[in-house]
Amino acid sequence: MKEQLGVLLATVEKELLNVGFDQAPTSLYKPAEYLLNIGGKRLRPIVTLLGCGVFTNPLKAMPQALAVEVFHNFTLMHDDIMDDAPLRRGQETVHEKWNLNTAILSGDAMLVKSYQLLAQCEATILPELLSVFSETALQVCEGQQHDMDFETRSEVTEAEYIGMIQQKTSVLLGCAIKMGALVGGASADDAAKLYQFGLLLGTSFQIKDDLLDCFGDPEKVGKQVGGDIVSNKKTLLLIQALKTAKGDDAATLNAWINKKQFDPKEKVDAVKATYRNLEIEDFANTKMNFYFKRALKNLDDVSATPEQKKTLYAFADWLMKRDS
Amino acid sequence: MKEQLGVLLATVEKELLNVGFDQAPTSLYKPAEYLLNIGGKRLRPIVTLLGCGVFTNPLKAMPQALAVEVFHNFTLMHDDIMDDAPLRRGQETVHEKWNLNTAILSGDAMLVKSYQLLAQCEATILPELLSVFSETALQVCEGQQHDMDFETRSEVTEAEYIGMIQQKTSVLLGCAIKMGALVGGASADDAAKLYQFGLLLGTSFQIKDDLLDCFGDPEKVGKQVGGDIVSNKKTLLLIQALKTAKGDDAATLNAWINKKQFDPKEKVDAVKATYRNLEIEDFANTKMNFYFKRALKNLDDVSATPEQKKTLYAFADWLMKRDS
Repeated sequence: MKEQLGVLLATVEKELLNVGFDQAPTSLYKPAEYLLNIGGKRLRPIVTLLGCGVFTNPLKAMPQALAVEVFHNFTLMHDDIMDDAPLRRGQETVHEKWNLNTAILSGDAMLVKSYQLLAQCEATILPELLSVFSETALQVCEGQQHDMDFETRSEVTEAEYIGMIQQKTSVLLGCAIKMGALVGGASADDAAKLYQFGLLLGTSFQIKDDLLDCFGDPEKVGKQVGGDIVSNKKTLLLIQALKTAKGDDAATLNAWINKKQFDPKEKVDAVKATYRNLEIEDFANTKMNFYFKRALKNLDDVSATPEQKKTLYAFADWLMKRDS
Repeated sequence: MKEQLGVLLATVEKELLNVGFDQAPTSLYKPAEYLLNIGGKRLRPIVTLLGCGVFTNPLKAMPQALAVEVFHNFTLMHDDIMDDAPLRRGQETVHEKWNLNTAILSGDAMLVKSYQLLAQCEATILPELLSVFSETALQVCEGQQHDMDFETRSEVTEAEYIGMIQQKTSVLLGCAIKMGALVGGASADDAAKLYQFGLLLGTSFQIKDDLLDCFGDPEKVGKQVGGDIVSNKKTLLLIQALKTAKGDDAATLNAWINKKQFDPKEKVDAVKATYRNLEIEDFANTKMNFYFKRALKNLDDVSATPEQKKTLYAFADWLMKRDS
């Protein structure tokens, strides 16, 4: 499995160099090329190729895989402006390295480019590809808006949080695999099941991300853990803690959330101590597994042989067992 | 003609209220609704309908007409950020009324929405609609980038200027009419000729805009004239003046361009005096007519009866004779 993924990944990396950002005006396209080439796990394009690979040669869906990755990087470029983020993958963000206007306009061009890439398909499936892609793109915008709106709200429910991460992250995984499946010749029914598989896998993936940010091994995650705690980000962990904390735990949590001046390490340690009292890690792991199992159930129901689906099973397993 | 245009315009205005921006999250969609409803000439959607109307009922292309108008307003929302503009059509710009993040994200959603609208067509013409729309959208981004790049350059040639305004403005008129024509059932050849008609009409339209900004009647134009002169905008007028000015005129022009502190009215009067000496208005009128005639030649060559094309001829004529 790892070998096959390695081959697909290498092909994606190579093709990303040829999507057409190496042209004039360089002030418009160079930032897109830069952001695409400072790394990333390339999960989304891999998922598109694997979705296609259930039914035929995975590389047939390469344009759509690239479309999804270019789209994802467009959202990163604009989100980084909105979050005022100085770094992305350890490198300067585009609005820092260039300027605000460049990051806006170059991002816009990337969004258009993603449509050009996805349109490279047989005409018969274009309407459906376009439909799922545009609907997904709007949901991603809505998810980002909800994420920003949540920052200024005092209370967010678990259901609202799950809805937000599904819009902001998971629907794109659903869209990615569905587009691959459609290019591969999947029936509408199988394409819909694979969409659900991607959506639910993406949901458990995001909960895993929240867990790693809090409980991960800093050396393996590649960054200091506890960033979400420091910034009071309303993750599933904090939402559940605030919901269940009583007495001392509630007092500790609220005190740290409202403190303006603090030592970050001290805050992380204190909040994590209440998380341990409240068994938040177990809670989040249970939720993660709930979505993961529902994801696998949808994959089970896709009308293809176990042999055809085995790379997707292995990929899902690897994704959930990761420690970075 | 005026009556028919009035009916089409009223229908466009009504349909623009139903494109789907009246939904949640309102923090994302309300700004789009706001910008779409503070006015505008609606030239682009009218052109799409007229392109369709050469071959069939113009209203058949309503989704594509709306797509073009939503796309145009997306570019305005992002351009206003880049230009740091406080007002648009006499009203607060979105980033002023809300904030930067809202203007970025709401604009992104509008771009996606324009693709959803344009996709409402028969599947057989979707690939071509999508192709011309995406290519045009990239050109518009490139035009905006060139426009910003030109601001910091000391010299811009007439050819570079024409190329920039064609990308930033005219290609969208070409795209608008071509999409309408394709929806109406035009042959590839006629669609290409109508694209050229739109492109060249858009070019003369932009030169007319430059002329009105300098020589228009303030009461009719609805704003103080001379804004381009005050900001040293490298329009066709200034480019030609700098190219041909000698002796006193050259000295006057350069002095005013480099002056940091000045009375705007005094600068406008002084620069316009050199424009008169150099016969800049005649020059620009000649250029405008050159593109206008080439536009009409393309319309002449479209294989439809004069009766079918008469509204387009009348529209083009009205567009060039306008004084606002």
